Amino acid sequence: MDKLIIIKIGGNIIDDESKLSLFLRDFAAINANKILIHGGGKLATRLAEQMNAPQQLVDGRRITDAATLKIVTMVYAGYINKTIVAQLQANGCNALGLTGADGNVIRAHKRVHATIDYGFVGDVDSIDVSLLTTLLRQGLCPVLCPITHDKNGQLLNTNADTIAQEAAKALSALFDIELIYSFEKNGVLLDVDNENSVIKKLTVAHYSELKTEGKIFAGMIPKLDNAFSALKCGVKKVIIGKAEEIQELLNGDKGTSISHD
Amino acid sequence: MDKLIIIKIGGNIIDDESKLSLFLRDFAAINANKILIHGGGKLATRLAEQMNAPQQLVDGRRITDAATLKIVTMVYAGYINKTIVAQLQANGCNALGLTGADGNVIRAHKRVHATIDYGFVGDVDSIDVSLLTTLLRQGLCPVLCPITHDKNGQLLNTNADTIAQEAAKALSALFDIELIYSFEKNGVLLDVDNENSVIKKLTVAHYSELKTEGKIFAGMIPKLDNAFSALKCGVKKVIIGKAEEIQELLNGDKGTSISHD
Repeated sequence: MDKLIIIKIGGNIIDDESKLSLFLRDFAAINANKILIHGGGKLATRLAEQMNAPQQLVDGRRITDAATLKIVTMVYAGYINKTIVAQLQANGCNALGLTGADGNVIRAHKRVHATIDYGFVGDVDSIDVSLLTTLLRQGLCPVLCPITHDKNGQLLNTNADTIAQEAAKALSALFDIELIYSFEKNGVLLDVDNENSVIKKLTVAHYSELKTEGKIFAGMIPKLDNAFSALKCGVKKVIIGKAEEIQELLNGDKGTSISHD
Repeated sequence: MDKLIIIKIGGNIIDDESKLSLFLRDFAAINANKILIHGGGKLATRLAEQMNAPQQLVDGRRITDAATLKIVTMVYAGYINKTIVAQLQANGCNALGLTGADGNVIRAHKRVHATIDYGFVGDVDSIDVSLLTTLLRQGLCPVLCPITHDKNGQLLNTNADTIAQEAAKALSALFDIELIYSFEKNGVLLDVDNENSVIKKLTVAHYSELKTEGKIFAGMIPKLDNAFSALKCGVKKVIIGKAEEIQELLNGDKGTSISHD
């Protein structure tokens, strides 16, 4: 099977213009099938302030009312996605930006929760691999933003880590997938205050131990749960590390490699 | 050759949620290869006001400074494009939204003008028909917004009428093209104050006469110049009329049909 590299970049790099430029140059240079998935960043929050649309967070998730959905659609699908696509094009990478609504690539449903109304937050139902595969086979690089739809006309705000994981799982029947979650740290850290304490290889057993010992910090748990879930569903390799070191992550020289055993 | 219907909708219908919904339902029902091109609408202007970014117009064209480019990218490529795509998907039309940067579909250059600095306004250099053709052959409906790029990383604000015309010309070697410019009037009017004075068929000779007599109002001239230029370059049919009457325009029952002779 052909290799496919799926990279998710987080908000911190999107907020830093020069870091983002360097990352996109490195990303464009990767000589393989590839998909980029980007998160949000602070621009949506700043725009909401300018528009006097107050933001609410519950468990680190934005409550997406109608005004917020409009703002994140503008910022994620519009400004961030197209800025990334234009820069990749300038670097010789034939990028094409997509929300889940485009070509019905990611269908989701409005989150159902017993006590919290998340508003227009979407949980992924299905990924249509046929369009993604067609684009990849034509040498294009899909750039996914965290906006999906319910196929009934409703756009939905969806977690980018989840999109990365679901896309990786769905495409694992067709490609050998390496999934990279990049964020602001060097990798999964044994000591959250020490950037040099990167765990080189994290197995299911080790992860359970660290969770029991309370050594894995809160924000990492959904990311790692996502990573192990992806491995279980056919993804070949999951790596967590810094976007600035993408080549080293791919080479196995840096970051944390997630594995079953 | 297969038929391809290219429809451009203007700002007035985009600003009217219920009219837009009806139009998209009708558009989705067209049983042929089709491309939709949309303009801007008032939302960008309103957002600019909220963000205290003053807008300048010269000859009816927005002067696009960096703040305005960010706003139009958010509104055109983000909110409007994705709202349209999601609604078309709900109506069973497999729409996929694109800026000119996506898949390098429309390459443009920053406008050069002797006396006016238009800022980040782009004039079209080339349309890449291969991706559009691939998408159409897969049953997808491209939805183009009026944002292009220069392939050097710069997004550009581009007139939607021009994009429609250039796309129609470029694709005319591969498809029998019907190009529809829809706007707020019933068609090209002999008397601008009388909606019943639609010119059913407008030829080059008649158009010249009307221009000489000063009977064609200012805003129509670039639209009609575009239309005749498209015909000259291989487009089979150009129709101008109301978006609310799309089926009648396609049937030849309403609107103005533009022809050489």
